[in-house]
Amino acid sequence: MADDLAGRAELRVAVLGVGVMGAFHVDRLSRTVHGARVTVINDAAADRADTIACAAGARVEPDPIAAINADDVDAVVIASPGPFHAEQVSACLDRGIPVLCEKPLTTSPESAYEIVRREAALPGRLIQVGFMRRYDAEYVKLRTLITDGGVGDPLLLHCVHRNPDNRPEFDSSMMITDSVVHEVDVARFLLGEEIAAIQVTKPTAKRGTPDGQWDPMIVLLTTETGKVVTVEIFARTGVGYQVRTELVGSAGSAMIGLDLGLISTVGPLGAGHWGGPVAPGFVERFATAYGTELQAFVDAARQGTVDGPSAWDGYAAAAVCAAGVEAVRTGESVPIHLQPRP
Amino acid sequence: MADDLAGRAELRVAVLGVGVMGAFHVDRLSRTVHGARVTVINDAAADRADTIACAAGARVEPDPIAAINADDVDAVVIASPGPFHAEQVSACLDRGIPVLCEKPLTTSPESAYEIVRREAALPGRLIQVGFMRRYDAEYVKLRTLITDGGVGDPLLLHCVHRNPDNRPEFDSSMMITDSVVHEVDVARFLLGEEIAAIQVTKPTAKRGTPDGQWDPMIVLLTTETGKVVTVEIFARTGVGYQVRTELVGSAGSAMIGLDLGLISTVGPLGAGHWGGPVAPGFVERFATAYGTELQAFVDAARQGTVDGPSAWDGYAAAAVCAAGVEAVRTGESVPIHLQPRP
Amino acid sequence: MADDLAGRAELRVAVLGVGVMGAFHVDRLSRTVHGARVTVINDAAADRADTIACAAGARVEPDPIAAINADDVDAVVIASPGPFHAEQVSACLDRGIPVLCEKPLTTSPESAYEIVRREAALPGRLIQVGFMRRYDAEYVKLRTLITDGGVGDPLLLHCVHRNPDNRPEFDSSMMITDSVVHEVDVARFLLGEEIAAIQVTKPTAKRGTPDGQWDPMIVLLTTETGKVVTVEIFARTGVGYQVRTELVGSAGSAMIGLDLGLISTVGPLGAGHWGGPVAPGFVERFATAYGTELQAFVDAARQGTVDGPSAWDGYAAAAVCAAGVEAVRTGESVPIHLQPRP
Amino acid sequence: MADDLAGRAELRVAVLGVGVMGAFHVDRLSRTVHGARVTVINDAAADRADTIACAAGARVEPDPIAAINADDVDAVVIASPGPFHAEQVSACLDRGIPVLCEKPLTTSPESAYEIVRREAALPGRLIQVGFMRRYDAEYVKLRTLITDGGVGDPLLLHCVHRNPDNRPEFDSSMMITDSVVHEVDVARFLLGEEIAAIQVTKPTAKRGTPDGQWDPMIVLLTTETGKVVTVEIFARTGVGYQVRTELVGSAGSAMIGLDLGLISTVGPLGAGHWGGPVAPGFVERFATAYGTELQAFVDAARQGTVDGPSAWDGYAAAAVCAAGVEAVRTGESVPIHLQPRP
Repeated sequence: MADDLAGRAELRVAVLGVGVMGAFHVDRLSRTVHGARVTVINDAAADRADTIACAAGARVEPDPIAAINADDVDAVVIASPGPFHAEQVSACLDRGIPVLCEKPLTTSPESAYEIVRREAALPGRLIQVGFMRRYDAEYVKLRTLITDGGVGDPLLLHCVHRNPDNRPEFDSSMMITDSVVHEVDVARFLLGEEIAAIQVTKPTAKRGTPDGQWDPMIVLLTTETGKVVTVEIFARTGVGYQVRTELVGSAGSAMIGLDLGLISTVGPLGAGHWGGPVAPGFVERFATAYGTELQAFVDAARQGTVDGPSAWDGYAAAAVCAAGVEAVRTGESVPIHLQPRP
Repeated sequence: MADDLAGRAELRVAVLGVGVMGAFHVDRLSRTVHGARVTVINDAAADRADTIACAAGARVEPDPIAAINADDVDAVVIASPGPFHAEQVSACLDRGIPVLCEKPLTTSPESAYEIVRREAALPGRLIQVGFMRRYDAEYVKLRTLITDGGVGDPLLLHCVHRNPDNRPEFDSSMMITDSVVHEVDVARFLLGEEIAAIQVTKPTAKRGTPDGQWDPMIVLLTTETGKVVTVEIFARTGVGYQVRTELVGSAGSAMIGLDLGLISTVGPLGAGHWGGPVAPGFVERFATAYGTELQAFVDAARQGTVDGPSAWDGYAAAAVCAAGVEAVRTGESVPIHLQPRP
Repeated sequence: MADDLAGRAELRVAVLGVGVMGAFHVDRLSRTVHGARVTVINDAAADRADTIACAAGARVEPDPIAAINADDVDAVVIASPGPFHAEQVSACLDRGIPVLCEKPLTTSPESAYEIVRREAALPGRLIQVGFMRRYDAEYVKLRTLITDGGVGDPLLLHCVHRNPDNRPEFDSSMMITDSVVHEVDVARFLLGEEIAAIQVTKPTAKRGTPDGQWDPMIVLLTTETGKVVTVEIFARTGVGYQVRTELVGSAGSAMIGLDLGLISTVGPLGAGHWGGPVAPGFVERFATAYGTELQAFVDAARQGTVDGPSAWDGYAAAAVCAAGVEAVRTGESVPIHLQPRP
Repeated sequence: MADDLAGRAELRVAVLGVGVMGAFHVDRLSRTVHGARVTVINDAAADRADTIACAAGARVEPDPIAAINADDVDAVVIASPGPFHAEQVSACLDRGIPVLCEKPLTTSPESAYEIVRREAALPGRLIQVGFMRRYDAEYVKLRTLITDGGVGDPLLLHCVHRNPDNRPEFDSSMMITDSVVHEVDVARFLLGEEIAAIQVTKPTAKRGTPDGQWDPMIVLLTTETGKVVTVEIFARTGVGYQVRTELVGSAGSAMIGLDLGLISTVGPLGAGHWGGPVAPGFVERFATAYGTELQAFVDAARQGTVDGPSAWDGYAAAAVCAAGVEAVRTGESVPIHLQPRP
């Protein structure tokens, strides 16, 4: 009963980093998530922090560590650039408050594992990593198909991940660490296993791709029991955002992401076309999943717990991606050796 | 054995009327139908007859009745204008050779019934009416779902029939007699019952439709046991050709004609579109069905029989369409009273 | 600034009636809607009220009018049986607080119009009617297609509304007033016009339907400018919940509700089947729309306004449904005459 | 004109090998292909030859070479086991008559290349290889999308090839030579390039797969300009036959084979399912393509020519598959070195 009353108090959240992703989180927390309020905003860009804070009715704190330790903060959402994550997550662990950290957990497997160990030494979990696809209704259905045995033993996954465009510095390494990292987590989530090896095949790139860069690429993941995941990663299709996953099991298969929601038929005489719009970007495709993710974080935090993808999930993904960056360079299959799970 | 040998002789066909439809039949008979050859061509337009005959290696016969009675003709395909059908079909009955008559069988229920009676007095069937949808693989699957009981008792049909365009004289009456006639036959084919009443609702027409004409229209057919068929008929969508039928039964439903064969994803950044081309016209949509229809006619004729939609089907459709034309005029539900089936 | 602060106060909501729909609203308000809290629960069944109130951390108020007038209530959600709506909505108008009233607004066009007039005499709107489809992402896309001119002038709508099952007393009249009422509002929302006439066609009923009842039925709505809406209403398919709407315009068409989200392929050898699950009920199909509807109500209430479907929308739907019940009885097209809009 | 008359003579065909595939060809030639007649049947199993010949009105010739050289044979269809192909095709070249040879052209790249050289020394082509997918309407649409530039420069192909079941001796090598061979030809047909390397990844096999065998497998083909083709090959899904190909270009993508032709909705209350049947086998999926392939062979032969996939296509596929068998064994990427094209 006391717990229940405690759980009803509105969660006061500090958001660190209010670029596209962080601003989106502030908006969700302020407008559609139940039981939370953004009280503190931090960003390296003072004017951006001011604008977002003003709209959200929050205050600005220029020092991220001070924000984490502020009296009016019960929990933290980290959406700052990756290099700041290790220190900011550590500060949350120090204070002992829940933190939702956007991927990557940190920028290296080593620093991520250090976080895993530090959290493991605490009485309970504090870290949720922002792999939002685990909250997407279609991915949840795929996972349910596996746990229900609806398609038999899972054998393969085929993933397609196409971005419409990206900023110039988004290179082939970032295609692994920033994009394929989602498929790495999806594979671990759906198959319930660690990834043991990664190989990257580099087709002739789309015209206009800079020398030494590849786009699209084909990634092959092999799990510890030998299941295989194929991933097409395409950073700049010029069209729209498409994320599709097909599960192949011993008794059937299932595909999500075809996105046949609205079927219209239009066009000039003799050249008519049926179909529908492609989602323009990840915000449109995963808006509901992001909201569900935040709600789950807030709900758990108000009950004194943390749920969803863990620091270990963040570490394992980082380890696979580090091997993936090497695989881009060498063209060879690169094995992944995880540290012991604490 | 003798029958079998007889069956193997190549069927020599006269084609009467070589407009779009007739020319298409000549082409199929000359290039993809097994066991047939076009020997005689007749058309009111002499030069058109010459061109088609030359390409097909056939001769021209300027008199349709002479064509029917020619020594080098075993069977007849009638694709001439409707007003000529009654006389031409009668001549085929007189000579006792098989005839595939494009719809309409004749231009009035009375003349169609006269044909039914004359054929019934002969020892066997000679007439097949050109309702090609009965040979379309998807309609066959719908029919099989009904006969197999896969969706329980059939209760409703929803039909959509959209033409991209039509010649100026194609008025609201012709929308019934030339277009909805296909849904009338589909309903009779799928449900295995006669149509007992027809009602036509006339929405405000698409801009540009002449005064006194309606496009699109909504047609309601009621069968003798009270099943209901809804039909959207649209003569000039400006887009493409779409024919869709949904069967609603007591244990489920089934839809054909969505035409999701090829799914492409293209388009400028941020305005991408997935989908596929709409069939431009009935030839593309039903090309295979027309071929199957002709093959069935030829196969049966070579065995001395006739198969497929009968003169009675042609008469019943004519009776429904005549009532439909009245229903367009009056806006009332018009009952259909069929003559006794001989 | 003061307004903004006011807007941030948590909205305290009384929920009247906690059957399936009301309990669902309490759950949404307590768990996923931002900025609201259920403080008071009222229901004729005391134990049901207790259970729901306990889970929501709210108190029970046995008198609905007292609940509406309670000090700890800023806004009201009415999900009680229809016959109580008129009095309860009136009490909200008396006190001057916002109310989200589940359909029907009241049980007769006359009483609904009385509500419309009483609200119109107040300084601003207080009533939102629970037509949740206006908040469904797919219906919003259809509406956008119309306002953007993407399919030209709208001409027709084809609606399919299939319920898996219903309680025994759900008769053909209720199929109009409780089910088709949604299509009536969808038609008004999409086309932006009033309905001028309604006709109901009664096919032979599914086996097991009681004498004097019809299931399924075909409803035709005609708008004031002559657009036509076809509706298949089916109360007990025995399969699942399917709601589909196709818009036909002068330059194209568009369909929502095919629900092709997950495509799996399973089955015994030689009898494999591809496809996906049918939504079992309206809660699953429209869960997100209900949440969005409640969020919109709460957001507006916290700003001192009301948004969404209005009392007039509730009145117009009631008038169409009353005519529809007569149309079920007579089989004739029944005209709808609306009172002047205040 | 003389050519045209020659072209009209009925083609007399010998069919060598009347197992499943050969019997299917006999049936098409006897019943739906225009301008051909099966005159001679040869098969190692005398009773099978008798049965098929009797039904087709053909005679049996126990010696295949005698069948090829018979007076009543104008052209040959080879559907005998692969090891006989080299000698039988050679005999057709010796006599100078057209031959449609089921894949494989021969059982080794060396013997296939020998056939290529022998045919190249003749005045014109005589060999068509039975890669029927080139005649499938959907593959033709994909090819047209490429030649029209509709999806920009082709970059990737993703292929799925799932068989419902196979005989026990169908091992991982045969999965390459008998199944993936179709994707090899599809890739060459669509991309218009040779395959330069092949790699095979072997996931943990479906339970019940014999030791030393893998099912499913992932095949990666790389073309001479660096385009990449991914292939999932699955020999025994237990479900049905699924062949899907997605083309990814620099300006969009396109997929065929989803096979959404008939959408039904059935099932017990609360567990309803929408979808349609999976094609049970390759005959159902590609029946029309086989017919079109045969018609193209017959049409060309009657004009004194040969069309479609050539001996070179057969040789190139054989070379890729030989490398593929090695790749199954080694797990390494195996380069393909083609002999000079004569």
